[in-house]
Amino acid sequence: MTDEQLARYRSSIDNIDAALVHMLAERFKITQDVGRYKATAGLPAADLEREERQVARLRALAEESGLDPVFTEKFLRFIVAEVIHHHQRIAENESKTSDDSSAI
Amino acid sequence: MTDEQLARYRSSIDNIDAALVHMLAERFKITQDVGRYKATAGLPAADLEREERQVARLRALAEESGLDPVFTEKFLRFIVAEVIHHHQRIAENESKTSDDSSAI
Repeated sequence: MTDEQLARYRSSIDNIDAALVHMLAERFKITQDVGRYKATAGLPAADLEREERQVARLRALAEESGLDPVFTEKFLRFIVAEVIHHHQRIAENESKTSDDSSAI
Repeated sequence: MTDEQLARYRSSIDNIDAALVHMLAERFKITQDVGRYKATAGLPAADLEREERQVARLRALAEESGLDPVFTEKFLRFIVAEVIHHHQRIAENESKTSDDSSAI
């Protein structure tokens, strides 16, 4: 990399990506708590109504901040798909654990 | 929503999502500058070597912060695909503009 201007842009992108990774790590910490909570309370992993409210809110925030709302919706659905996948895994582990304990 | 614990979790998720949207808005502002810069300099929209370095760096950051590195790689590739799509659009517009000006 010898192009100084491109290097400056890229160092800003790298800073933002580090922030994004840490934000996502925190988000998944919370959604994992939610997953455990839902599994214990017997709530379903997905909540379509909540998801639609989130999409509407983030599309509005995106418009305010100059981000493409269509991309933002794709982005949220991408994250939520991963979260639901985690929740299902947590629920499966919970039911396995309770099967085990009832077998003891 | 009457469940207080779930509502607390969700308000944290909403705060993080707002931060993510604003970070992404800033990231795309920069990559749009990069796109224009690349189009002007005649550089290609994609740079696979840079992308692989980004993936390796973000996977390491993800491991440090407890985020799934596989998900993090998928996440970066999802963003980069959008960026390349933008760059191609910018390059097309640039070449259209220069066609127009050469036709005048």
